[in-house]
Amino acid sequence: MSEFEESGIGEECGVFGCVAAGEWPTQLEVAKVLTLGLVALQHRGQESAGIVTSNGVNPPTYNTLKGMGLVNNAFPPENLLKLRYGNLGIGHTRYSTTGISELQNCQPFVVDTLHGKIAVAHNGELVNAAALRKKVMRHGVGLSTSSDSELITQLLALTPPMEELDAPDWVARIKNLMHETPTSYSLLVMYTDVIYAIRDPYGNRPLSIGRLVPISKLHTAGAGEGETEGWVVSSESCSFQSIGARYYREVMPGEIVQISKHGVKSLSIVPRPEGDLPAFCIFEYVYFARPDSIFEGQMVYTVRQRCGRQLAIEAPTEADVVSTVPESATPAALGYAQQSGLPYVEVLCKNRYVGRTFIQPNTRLRQLGVAKKFGALTDNFTGKRVVLVDDSIVRGNTISPIIKLLKEAGATEVHIRVASPPIRFPCYMGINIPTKEELIANRPEFEDIAGYIGATSVRYLSVEGLLSAVQGGIPSLQGKDERINTKASRSVGHCTACLTGKYPVELEW
Amino acid sequence: MSEFEESGIGEECGVFGCVAAGEWPTQLEVAKVLTLGLVALQHRGQESAGIVTSNGVNPPTYNTLKGMGLVNNAFPPENLLKLRYGNLGIGHTRYSTTGISELQNCQPFVVDTLHGKIAVAHNGELVNAAALRKKVMRHGVGLSTSSDSELITQLLALTPPMEELDAPDWVARIKNLMHETPTSYSLLVMYTDVIYAIRDPYGNRPLSIGRLVPISKLHTAGAGEGETEGWVVSSESCSFQSIGARYYREVMPGEIVQISKHGVKSLSIVPRPEGDLPAFCIFEYVYFARPDSIFEGQMVYTVRQRCGRQLAIEAPTEADVVSTVPESATPAALGYAQQSGLPYVEVLCKNRYVGRTFIQPNTRLRQLGVAKKFGALTDNFTGKRVVLVDDSIVRGNTISPIIKLLKEAGATEVHIRVASPPIRFPCYMGINIPTKEELIANRPEFEDIAGYIGATSVRYLSVEGLLSAVQGGIPSLQGKDERINTKASRSVGHCTACLTGKYPVELEW
Amino acid sequence: MSEFEESGIGEECGVFGCVAAGEWPTQLEVAKVLTLGLVALQHRGQESAGIVTSNGVNPPTYNTLKGMGLVNNAFPPENLLKLRYGNLGIGHTRYSTTGISELQNCQPFVVDTLHGKIAVAHNGELVNAAALRKKVMRHGVGLSTSSDSELITQLLALTPPMEELDAPDWVARIKNLMHETPTSYSLLVMYTDVIYAIRDPYGNRPLSIGRLVPISKLHTAGAGEGETEGWVVSSESCSFQSIGARYYREVMPGEIVQISKHGVKSLSIVPRPEGDLPAFCIFEYVYFARPDSIFEGQMVYTVRQRCGRQLAIEAPTEADVVSTVPESATPAALGYAQQSGLPYVEVLCKNRYVGRTFIQPNTRLRQLGVAKKFGALTDNFTGKRVVLVDDSIVRGNTISPIIKLLKEAGATEVHIRVASPPIRFPCYMGINIPTKEELIANRPEFEDIAGYIGATSVRYLSVEGLLSAVQGGIPSLQGKDERINTKASRSVGHCTACLTGKYPVELEW
Amino acid sequence: MSEFEESGIGEECGVFGCVAAGEWPTQLEVAKVLTLGLVALQHRGQESAGIVTSNGVNPPTYNTLKGMGLVNNAFPPENLLKLRYGNLGIGHTRYSTTGISELQNCQPFVVDTLHGKIAVAHNGELVNAAALRKKVMRHGVGLSTSSDSELITQLLALTPPMEELDAPDWVARIKNLMHETPTSYSLLVMYTDVIYAIRDPYGNRPLSIGRLVPISKLHTAGAGEGETEGWVVSSESCSFQSIGARYYREVMPGEIVQISKHGVKSLSIVPRPEGDLPAFCIFEYVYFARPDSIFEGQMVYTVRQRCGRQLAIEAPTEADVVSTVPESATPAALGYAQQSGLPYVEVLCKNRYVGRTFIQPNTRLRQLGVAKKFGALTDNFTGKRVVLVDDSIVRGNTISPIIKLLKEAGATEVHIRVASPPIRFPCYMGINIPTKEELIANRPEFEDIAGYIGATSVRYLSVEGLLSAVQGGIPSLQGKDERINTKASRSVGHCTACLTGKYPVELEW
Repeated sequence: MSEFEESGIGEECGVFGCVAAGEWPTQLEVAKVLTLGLVALQHRGQESAGIVTSNGVNPPTYNTLKGMGLVNNAFPPENLLKLRYGNLGIGHTRYSTTGISELQNCQPFVVDTLHGKIAVAHNGELVNAAALRKKVMRHGVGLSTSSDSELITQLLALTPPMEELDAPDWVARIKNLMHETPTSYSLLVMYTDVIYAIRDPYGNRPLSIGRLVPISKLHTAGAGEGETEGWVVSSESCSFQSIGARYYREVMPGEIVQISKHGVKSLSIVPRPEGDLPAFCIFEYVYFARPDSIFEGQMVYTVRQRCGRQLAIEAPTEADVVSTVPESATPAALGYAQQSGLPYVEVLCKNRYVGRTFIQPNTRLRQLGVAKKFGALTDNFTGKRVVLVDDSIVRGNTISPIIKLLKEAGATEVHIRVASPPIRFPCYMGINIPTKEELIANRPEFEDIAGYIGATSVRYLSVEGLLSAVQGGIPSLQGKDERINTKASRSVGHCTACLTGKYPVELEW
Repeated sequence: MSEFEESGIGEECGVFGCVAAGEWPTQLEVAKVLTLGLVALQHRGQESAGIVTSNGVNPPTYNTLKGMGLVNNAFPPENLLKLRYGNLGIGHTRYSTTGISELQNCQPFVVDTLHGKIAVAHNGELVNAAALRKKVMRHGVGLSTSSDSELITQLLALTPPMEELDAPDWVARIKNLMHETPTSYSLLVMYTDVIYAIRDPYGNRPLSIGRLVPISKLHTAGAGEGETEGWVVSSESCSFQSIGARYYREVMPGEIVQISKHGVKSLSIVPRPEGDLPAFCIFEYVYFARPDSIFEGQMVYTVRQRCGRQLAIEAPTEADVVSTVPESATPAALGYAQQSGLPYVEVLCKNRYVGRTFIQPNTRLRQLGVAKKFGALTDNFTGKRVVLVDDSIVRGNTISPIIKLLKEAGATEVHIRVASPPIRFPCYMGINIPTKEELIANRPEFEDIAGYIGATSVRYLSVEGLLSAVQGGIPSLQGKDERINTKASRSVGHCTACLTGKYPVELEW
Repeated sequence: MSEFEESGIGEECGVFGCVAAGEWPTQLEVAKVLTLGLVALQHRGQESAGIVTSNGVNPPTYNTLKGMGLVNNAFPPENLLKLRYGNLGIGHTRYSTTGISELQNCQPFVVDTLHGKIAVAHNGELVNAAALRKKVMRHGVGLSTSSDSELITQLLALTPPMEELDAPDWVARIKNLMHETPTSYSLLVMYTDVIYAIRDPYGNRPLSIGRLVPISKLHTAGAGEGETEGWVVSSESCSFQSIGARYYREVMPGEIVQISKHGVKSLSIVPRPEGDLPAFCIFEYVYFARPDSIFEGQMVYTVRQRCGRQLAIEAPTEADVVSTVPESATPAALGYAQQSGLPYVEVLCKNRYVGRTFIQPNTRLRQLGVAKKFGALTDNFTGKRVVLVDDSIVRGNTISPIIKLLKEAGATEVHIRVASPPIRFPCYMGINIPTKEELIANRPEFEDIAGYIGATSVRYLSVEGLLSAVQGGIPSLQGKDERINTKASRSVGHCTACLTGKYPVELEW
Repeated sequence: MSEFEESGIGEECGVFGCVAAGEWPTQLEVAKVLTLGLVALQHRGQESAGIVTSNGVNPPTYNTLKGMGLVNNAFPPENLLKLRYGNLGIGHTRYSTTGISELQNCQPFVVDTLHGKIAVAHNGELVNAAALRKKVMRHGVGLSTSSDSELITQLLALTPPMEELDAPDWVARIKNLMHETPTSYSLLVMYTDVIYAIRDPYGNRPLSIGRLVPISKLHTAGAGEGETEGWVVSSESCSFQSIGARYYREVMPGEIVQISKHGVKSLSIVPRPEGDLPAFCIFEYVYFARPDSIFEGQMVYTVRQRCGRQLAIEAPTEADVVSTVPESATPAALGYAQQSGLPYVEVLCKNRYVGRTFIQPNTRLRQLGVAKKFGALTDNFTGKRVVLVDDSIVRGNTISPIIKLLKEAGATEVHIRVASPPIRFPCYMGINIPTKEELIANRPEFEDIAGYIGATSVRYLSVEGLLSAVQGGIPSLQGKDERINTKASRSVGHCTACLTGKYPVELEW
């Protein structure tokens, strides 16, 4: 229960695709793989989920399953049966940014075209969506939803005009689309028997490829290409473990990858404007991604731990113990403890059931605030000075009652250490961020933030510190160089727009 | 439980619209009027229901509510609340002909265009849908459903190309659409603050207009135009009673009527090809419509009663009593009794709960057949010769066990009199009819239909007899002329394609 | 939609039992027979349903299935599977009289005793329930529900005290119970491998026995005892048709019948106090029962038709047509038409979907009243004098807007003829009747009832007329004697307490 | 996801009660307090939940709400409204041990007696339930469920026989019950306006009392008795925090405490047989209780940490890092790390959504096993020797694939350290334990447990070590005495039956 969680900051979506390798029909049960893959991406969107499978023959039969809520609610087992014969498919889990929680906004979006059906799943937000919508409508196309996914689908159908006699050149259409919209998207486009996996030229959203191998060989050196059971593509590599896939590689910024039963093939890389660096969203490291996912060759958990270490370097504290606001801040807290040499203890115990309580609180219950979700492990901190590491302070609504709880239960001092810089700017690339006015960093209270939230002291990680933790500039504890990431060269770049206001592309609103 | 019901013959849809009159915002609660209006059209479709309301300002806010099943299940009260502020709206209730029972096929269909949103509700089936789909897709538009409603909406958006600066001429677009597809459709198109009500040039599907008046003046001569509370438009006039509206008039074949808060205005009538008669679906009279609806100036109940009288003229019987297979055949049975002078009695009592039983019958239970839905009122027919009037025999599966039941319970003879001619041909204009092979009239058994179903005798109404009952050629019982319908002139015509194979337009498949 | 239906007058319950004949385990699928049997009794209670099956061995395994709502909602198919192995069972469908709609009040009630489990299903209401509850509680038994069924079950367990060594004499216990409470109950008690079917000494509630025969022989003379597939026992014989059973006989007032796989055996008849007549509820004939049920040798439909005829004799009218408030008053209306010689027509068409609308009516919609559930078949009555037969007037809320509708739609006169006497007194034997104050017959308006409801005239059937229709005193139309019922001797009696205030037993409150 | 969780080991129930203090009616909204209290006890039972409130006047009105599933599913907000006027109430959350998941087994159990209604909620299992059931039934009482709660309720109603004129002496009845059954129960009995809170003489199940104070004074020294807003009683003190209550005290073994609006009063202490020690279930410390609960003056978290420290003393390891199987083993792992001086790291990341997946795994997916619920945080252990602390090994099904995962992902050694002794015996006092055959400690594989599960080594905590951690015999890390618990005298005792086979009372089966 970090401030991120409480304040509704969140990713827009997760995408997942799977193609069975070898002869079709396959025994792989693609719909089950897709379902489990989406479950592993559930943290990226809990509002609705959808999958579309194709039997892969020409013309193909597509089966669609969509539903509201968590994947397991959205896909009751009896409905999954309908999809059992697919040989490939794509799926999507959606986080509502707009409050319109209707089934019709649920992805993937499927349309019939002159040359057959295409299905599209999208993670991100097109920075020039409004202009593109106008363009499509000017052509005489009505748009039935407000989703970028439909817009992308119609753009693909539209440009260049469909010719009746020949097959359409979908790759050319995809390239065309990529030239019309620079960011932000990681896309899956399914057409009959292939999935195109696409990342925008700035690489703003993640996308990784995995290889399904026999379970018995999952972790062994064996299982050569010949033993491949299928290919998967996912917003995050954390989903590979749960379906029995090995990490293969990332889709590169601007790359179009074709995935079919014959394997994985890079078709093209659409370049950025000269001089522009990549702009992978730094908040994937800070908060969104699951800690066991791998981006740019490094594990998210390790980056978060480094953020904690960097924070200990930047903001050391006289204290007795270091702790965490469970659960997302734990790697940073352990990093802080390691670097500072202070003992790590648990001070809060989270009631995992309380989040789902629907009862209308009366005045008395409302006063209890978010603290009612935590039990205090008093033995660990009574009479002690506590460093409490959290991953962010967005509105201050979560951390404030926790501090009160700790102090009243006997902590002599509570020092808040925030493992990321303050969020100050909106995101136009797919992240739901409270309005500028709601962000505590933009309000007068921020001047005396410690006083405002009742802490003994408050310190944030610097933007430079965060970049250094992400791009590998922190000296190892053991003295050895921890720069896993040799890309820490000219070509490395991350989007820090919400922290600095520097957007990767100019916005035309 | 007629053979029609049992065999799945059914209408595709019902449409309903409402515009509040006078100043907006209104107290009329348009969403409730729409809901009750759809409930009154529930017999035209039970698979899904949807409504879209507009607040009527520019740009408008549209609210959509869709759901599977009966109107009351599809619109839970808490969801209706969302729509409470509409000043106008359209609704739709759907009968699945294809077996694809998905929410995304649910109407009305709404799209955003360069000039704002339009919503479309459609009853009927476009005879040239396949060609039109191709045309739209050739233009580069992807179609996300298989519904005619989406197709119509994209056609309206597409032709002629949208101009950015000026408002679109929706009426010209509608006329254009009507020239592209001759039949079959009754359409409601909502745009911001008006509803266009359209019937195809052949008038194949019904559409009537009603006027909402103060309840206290509903049935009195008063309530002039000035007291109008709103306007409604509906597939059938039977829905007017339940919402407190007076019958106003039918939309004419080919007519485009504009309904706004300022009233009802006929904009245009798109003509048929010279020489073509109207082709209002005769099965609306025979089976689909509710008996209290009015088409072409006559009440459906009365037409059905005339069918029964005509049948008694064409197929008289030596018998003791006349009865009905409840409930749809009752008017015809009473007409038969009147004309023949035989006493009318009830012989079957229907268990209204049994239809919803989901248990898998074992062999024993399956043998009981449809007869388990009826109780025999033996006192009324034991030892007697029974004329049993039904509205049709489609497969013979329903009537056969009923005859067995009556005979075993003591009827000495069971004469079946069918109040419509045999169905022999498929319908391409929106009616779900079993395949040609399934229709009993096309099978060898039909040669000895009485023997096949176990009846003492079987007689059908002739096509001419049906037309005469519909178009007013039956002499009155009391000797007075019953031709309510002075349109029994050159301009009267009805579609009898399913009975005769004569389709109103040439089909190009 | 009669006044009965609208005003909530209703039966408390229906009971149904089934024992598979011959060798066990059986192929009969007792749980399915019970389910269909209860569906056929659904009109006696829609609030909840329950069944309990036993495998019939010693000690037995009982399986219970209960649920709220209609039988088909209460027993989802996947749950029915659990009960598939039963060889006998009892079921119950409940009508809530108290407003406490909780699953725990749902019957049958099952308890474990020293000698094994018994299950009880009850239709009726114990007139001395309060005293019996006290007696049980004084013995130290806590009662967990307010249902008579639990009370009966604990009384059976209690008296005489259970002996550990010997088997209990359940029949003696049942007799004992019958001596403690004179009425009103029709009871099914299941114990291991038998069902005891019991009717109270006054025979206040109905109970009939049927025999399951091979479907192929259902209506033929064949199917001797040897071909019996099972035995069923039901509140009403109308349920026999739908499960393939033949009517066998009624359980007599005061009789205890044992039903097992070996057949049906009358064990005892507990007598009434000397001089007391039976008191079968006359409202079973008037309203509750399904028209195809048989009580005391006569079909309910025919009795209702006789009520209409008697009404025409008692209250003849100068009019043009006779009609009904559909559907329950139809037999009486047809009887009135027959006797009076006036033509029978339909004037109202009921929307069968409207009953389930949950939307909160606004003022405008509320003004429409119950009339919104009916369409007017104007052609049949405009300019005519109408006799409208209804089965009762309870509060006047239903009939009044219907009269208004007919008059405004053109009826010149509307004469109401009520096919039963006015209800004036409460029932303490299981029927839910509005409070004395709510009954129109007890209010000042009744003085000028015609004026109050807006009718041209109003006439009720007399109590004597009703008894004569029930007990067989009406001369046949054809002149032949219609007294089917030779029991019209000293031993015939019916409870008319709600009409006359004469209760069959003295009440001690 | 410990082996406990995976193998279905679990508590039977949690109980919770609340009485509003001061004048009634109160603003406290007792039903909401009960609901939140049960949510905080949700870990003790997820199968069903129920609450009963009383308005506290004589005769009282009781309102009951029960439902299947988690508290929030079981009590939809609209149903909670019904209970809003209660002044006191009790609740229960149930864990199914028998597989019979029916609503009727849901507690609290309410019965009507001669002197009014009593409601009972029970945590535990009566060791002599079978004999007591017989006794009750021999008295002529039928039992409608298999729950101990009903049995207790009927025993209270039964003995000594109810007298009509005088009020019953419920306290005498409760004492009588306690003499009839020695263990295991923590009971709440509600009667009109009081709740009796009872713990069995062995104190086998926990029960604590809390005081509701103004939220503003929750953690301050203020809020004297006069400011008490109400009293609560709960299986665990962890529920106090979430409703704004302060810990008051435990109910003592054998104690009967009366809780009313006037306060808390100890009525009696029923003694154990001479020489018998208390027998508080040691598994409440080891696994069941939430870590922030307090038993016998010590925090559960701290006891678990001490178990880890003791384990490090008993079973030291040459290794590089210490880690946990999240989340229940974390305190023990941190304790092990502290004591051993090895660094604590996280090696596994749990997907919190995966547990609810309902899809039928195919062979391929099944092979993935429980490991698919965890992501490997490889950076933290690749190339290292890992000590993995878990709280138990029950069947070995969970730990085995986790070890495989760690080793394949690069751990050079995996030493399993189990923070409790092996379970070898069944529990008859309310804990659901797999059959003796399923327990790994009773199987031949246990001989070479490390080989069987694939670990480098396996060591368990000794029974003496566990008792020492619980009863306070471990020297402090800092050298100071950590025996918080001065009851470490003769009167301290814990039930270790499942570990040692020594049951607190002799069992008569």
